[in-house]
Parts: sequence; C-alpha cells; structure tokens
Amino acid sequence: MVDITKNIADGSRMAGKQSIIFRNPPYIIAGSSMAGKKEGEGPLGKGFDQVFEDHMVGKKTWEEAESELMKLAAQKVLEKAGLKNSDIRYLIGGDLLGQLIATSFGVAELNIPIFGVYGACSTMGESMLLGAILVEGGYANRVIAITSSHFAGAEKQFRFPLDYGNQRPFSASWTVTGSGAVIIANHKANNKKDNEPDIVITGVTGGKIVDYGIKDSMNMGAAMAPAAFETIKQNFEDFNIKPSYYDQIITGDLGYVGKNILIELLKEKDYDITDRYIDCGIEIYSKDTQDTHAGGSGCACSAITFTSHVLKNLREGVWKRVLFVPTGALLSQVSFNEGNTVPGIAHAVMVEAR
Amino acid sequence: MVDITKNIADGSRMAGKQSIIFRNPPYIIAGSSMAGKKEGEGPLGKGFDQVFEDHMVGKKTWEEAESELMKLAAQKVLEKAGLKNSDIRYLIGGDLLGQLIATSFGVAELNIPIFGVYGACSTMGESMLLGAILVEGGYANRVIAITSSHFAGAEKQFRFPLDYGNQRPFSASWTVTGSGAVIIANHKANNKKDNEPDIVITGVTGGKIVDYGIKDSMNMGAAMAPAAFETIKQNFEDFNIKPSYYDQIITGDLGYVGKNILIELLKEKDYDITDRYIDCGIEIYSKDTQDTHAGGSGCACSAITFTSHVLKNLREGVWKRVLFVPTGALLSQVSFNEGNTVPGIAHAVMVEAR
Repeated sequence: MVDITKNIADGSRMAGKQSIIFRNPPYIIAGSSMAGKKEGEGPLGKGFDQVFEDHMVGKKTWEEAESELMKLAAQKVLEKAGLKNSDIRYLIGGDLLGQLIATSFGVAELNIPIFGVYGACSTMGESMLLGAILVEGGYANRVIAITSSHFAGAEKQFRFPLDYGNQRPFSASWTVTGSGAVIIANHKANNKKDNEPDIVITGVTGGKIVDYGIKDSMNMGAAMAPAAFETIKQNFEDFNIKPSYYDQIITGDLGYVGKNILIELLKEKDYDITDRYIDCGIEIYSKDTQDTHAGGSGCACSAITFTSHVLKNLREGVWKRVLFVPTGALLSQVSFNEGNTVPGIAHAVMVEAR
Repeated sequence: MVDITKNIADGSRMAGKQSIIFRNPPYIIAGSSMAGKKEGEGPLGKGFDQVFEDHMVGKKTWEEAESELMKLAAQKVLEKAGLKNSDIRYLIGGDLLGQLIATSFGVAELNIPIFGVYGACSTMGESMLLGAILVEGGYANRVIAITSSHFAGAEKQFRFPLDYGNQRPFSASWTVTGSGAVIIANHKANNKKDNEPDIVITGVTGGKIVDYGIKDSMNMGAAMAPAAFETIKQNFEDFNIKPSYYDQIITGDLGYVGKNILIELLKEKDYDITDRYIDCGIEIYSKDTQDTHAGGSGCACSAITFTSHVLKNLREGVWKRVLFVPTGALLSQVSFNEGNTVPGIAHAVMVEAR
C-alpha cells in the first residue's frame, strides 16, 4: 500500500510543488451528462443521461443551445442527487465561448452563486479542483462543477463558420456537443445502491501554462500534450508515486496525435502509462464508424466522459483509483489571427472509489 | 463592537446564504498597479506604481500590450513583497478578452500554476475571493490575484474597433487600461513600515447572476447595479450588519448611472450607504477634465483603484474596514449581436486594517 502522505508535513494540505491533498476527501455524490446526436451514436452513447437529436436543443442559436444543455445538466445532477437548487452553495463552471456566455445564460435562472472559470477544455478539471477545495475547506457543503461545449458554436468561435465548408486536417479534433456536471459534497450520496462504493476526490494538481510553440489551431493535441505531461509528472513527483498508483490515467482531449506525444514524453522520464491510459477524446467517438479525425475535444468531452464512463467504472469496481486530467488549449480567434502560439494547460483530479 | 460571528455556527466558515467568514484572515501583503496614460492623468494617477505613456506598452498589438501590463503587475507585486515567482503557489487571474488571452500570454512565463477565472469586470473580486480561500484553507501559503483590461482591446472585443469612430452615448463607460495584482498570504508582510497596520481579508460574499433585462451594452452601469445591490444586501444579511459596519463601501465600475441606481435600490431596503460609498469607475477619472461619460470600467478599474487608493487609505488609517465589490457585466459580442440581455454579477470582499 502506497502512502501518499509520506513526504507531506503533518496536517498540511500542500503536497509537493503544485498539488493538494484532501485530509477529508469530499464526495462526488452525483454526475450528469447531456450529449449531442453524434456523441449519442458513439461508443459511450448508452451511458449518457440524455441524447439530443436536435443540435439546436429547441433553441434559436447554437449558443442558446449550449446554455440549454448546461441548464439541463445542472437540473439532472440535482435530480439524481435528490437535491434542490437551494441545497447547492456555489456553482463553479465555464465554457469555451468568449466571456463564458454559455455558462452565464445557462445557469443564471438556477439562482446559485457562481464562480466563472476558464481553462479551455481543461475547465472541468479546474471546476472540480476548486469545488473540492471549497467543500473540504468548509466553505461550502455542496457545490456543482459544470462545463459545456457545442460543436457548431466552437467552430464559429475558433475557426470557420460551418457554412464556409472548410476542410479539416487529420490532426483536427471534433468539439463535443454536451454538458457534464457533478455535485461535490461534504457527505455521502444518500441514494446509493447497495454495495456501491463512495466516490471521493483525494487530491489535485494545479497546472501551469505550458507553451512548446505550436501555432496550429487544427492540431491542439500537440499543443496540449506537453501540458498534460507536466501536470501528470508533477502529480507523480508531488505524491512520490508511480503510474501504477492509478488503475487508470484519463486525459481530456489529446486525441490520437496528442496521446502518443504524451506517452513518449512520460517514457523519457521513465514513466510508462501505456497499459493504464485512455483519452476521453478517443473514447467518445468510434474510430471505425465516426470520422472525427484526431478525436473529440471541448469542455464537454472530458466532462461527459467522466460523468458517464469513468464514474460507472468506479462505481462498478472496475477501477479503484483514477487520475482525471482534463487538458486545455489556450487559444482564441484573436490570438490565432495575430500569429500567437497555442499554449496548453492541464489540471489533475485524483478520484477514488472506496 | 459588532460581532459578525454571532449568527454563525461555532467554527463554521459558512456565513448565511452566500458568504464566508475567515477564521484566520489571510493577509494582503502587497499590491501593484500598472496604468495607462489617461489613468495616470486622473485623480489617482500619482498613486499608481507605473504609468505608460505608450498605449502599446512597446508591443505590436493591443492584446500583447495588455498581457505585458499583466506581466509587469505580477513582477511588481512580487518585488514589493520581496518575493520570487517560486514563492507563489498559485495565481488566480483573468481578463475581459475572449478565452482570457491577456492572462494566458501575460503570466505564462512566470511559471506559476494558474486558475483562470472570468467574472467580467468583477474578476478582481472573484480572484481575491478564491485566493483568500486557498490561503486560509491551507491549500496555499501565498497566491497572486490579478486582472487586466485595455481600452482599445476591449472596444474591439465588445463594441466597435476604434478606427470606426463610433460615437459613445453618455451612459457608456471608458475601459481602464492597466493591471492590478495583490499577494494574499498566510503570514504578515515582512517589509511593512513602522506602525503600518496589517491588511486582512475577513470574509467574502459570492455573487449570483442578476438579470433585470437591460440590453444596452453602452449602459453597463444599469446592468450591473442590481447585481451589486443583491450582493451587498446579502453581505449585510449574512453577517447581520448595517452599512455603518464598514467605513467605506466600494463598487467596481457602476459609474454615475449605476451608482445612483444602487443607492436607490438599497434605500428601498432601508440601507443608506450614501455617506460611505464610492465607485472605482468614478474615482479613477476626473469628471471635470477627463470626458469619459459614465466613468471607468474594465477588470483593471477596480483592481488598480484597490491596489493604489484603497490600500493606501487602509494603510494610513483613513479607513479601518471596507467592503470591496467589483461588478461585472456578463455580455459578449456574440450574446449582444444575438439580442441577449446583459446580466450582471458582483463579488464582495471584506478587507480590514488591524
């Protein structure tokens, strides 16, 4: 049994250089997943709470559709936990759209105090990290961590409007349409099945901005892989552990290109994760029947993969301990047009079934 | 002597519905302020650490100029506190630009783990709130809370490019060019002057999104005033206090229009703040000699007013206790063009000299 507290001062919550250990691990008492049609047709499709055939989700614009998905994800996670809005002290959330409008318009009517966060597609990691801190620190009894993304809204925001019909290179990823939410609480879920384990967050590693000089917004996997590498390596170092500490290491949306880069970068440091590593961007679509080129991306990619596939495997005992590492590419239309690089960031969340 | 802990359960950090009380108030050990030319010519001009005559700050684009201001603000606050980058565990920051590019490119080279946040012009409130939580909770020994904005970059992002020469209505505010940063720590400043008090954060109130249906992006004061009202009222209720608990209540950027709305909304609830209320957007420019119409705005407006004017008055004993309430208008170019409302948000930070 590995003791991750070995090198941490008694009672301290600061682990190594960038990590936090939770002395009273907060509980993930529910997760929800709203997904688009394409996601519903993918390998994880059956696990989502709801799949929308209509990519407008009954709304007039893509942005409103995304807001609606977020609102529905929040309502669903409350329903699954058997809670009301007023039981939630704070909501931490964000999305890919400029000025987080999917979030602002999505969650306003829930009437919950909100902290808007932005880490591009790593946002679910940042939301869960900050949410776990609020709960373990005694600043909140329950919080919602939530993110969303929408394929059409993201293409318009970052690349070309869909009507333009731009050809996508093989390194390009496909933005996931959907929204995922979890409730993090200072108490166990009160509607668990018999023998179902508790799901807790035992620690986190906050990521730095990592810039290897990639300038191609159609190759975000290559831009984000170094950030995932730095955060995962730091997590191993801060807790003095090896990849084998985890049953699974799960990155957000590196895709086929970024996945291989990450594996190679870690191998150079003598960390081999190949036998216990998946990427949400690869899991969410079928390589054979769904042509998305490099895989899925977007804030919702890691969020709905976590709240369906990952939580299920933890609850069913397939995995006991995972490192969830949503990854983000910190570009904007403006920074891209001005010829800037695409820096990456990744935040890691240590999740355990006990 | 008012006891704000009276209605709070023993040892709890949750106060009322939306607030937090810090049992071991974290210290603000330094503040820095970088400002543009116009801000330097205003009433607070002499108090800024550095004023830049060149609105490009030696860079090629407005966005790069803003990033540079943020980098310089971070470096200055470290210098003033006598610290190095590596002494800071996390940086919490954001800006107005889509996907927070001023922040991503501004602070990347500091090599500090970062949590990107977005609350429009309320971002400094959110950064300080989360920073104080990280420090008091034992998750960090020291953090930087930082924001920036740039007049030209913001006009391009939200309204019209400057070259278009659009006429601004009298309700429009002027985005402050600058960047402000504070270091929040679990220890006192080690380079204080004799008799200088400690500056601490005693509590915070997280804001909800408040939408009164305002649709005019040129009248953000009216959009934000209801959010400031809700947060300030909640702060009074959560701690069972009256306006007289504070020597000064300081909103972010309501300007002349929003200030009057806020005063009236609070009066309807029998709270009179008129004799102890200022707005950073009004303080930062001269009404007589600088024609900015409704006043200043932008993330930097409250940030550099706080790190110059407010901290100075606290250090010199003019004020003992203030409620700092940065306010944000949650619009984007896309949401505005699609005919959406401009929801507001405000986060409150209770700051005390002791």
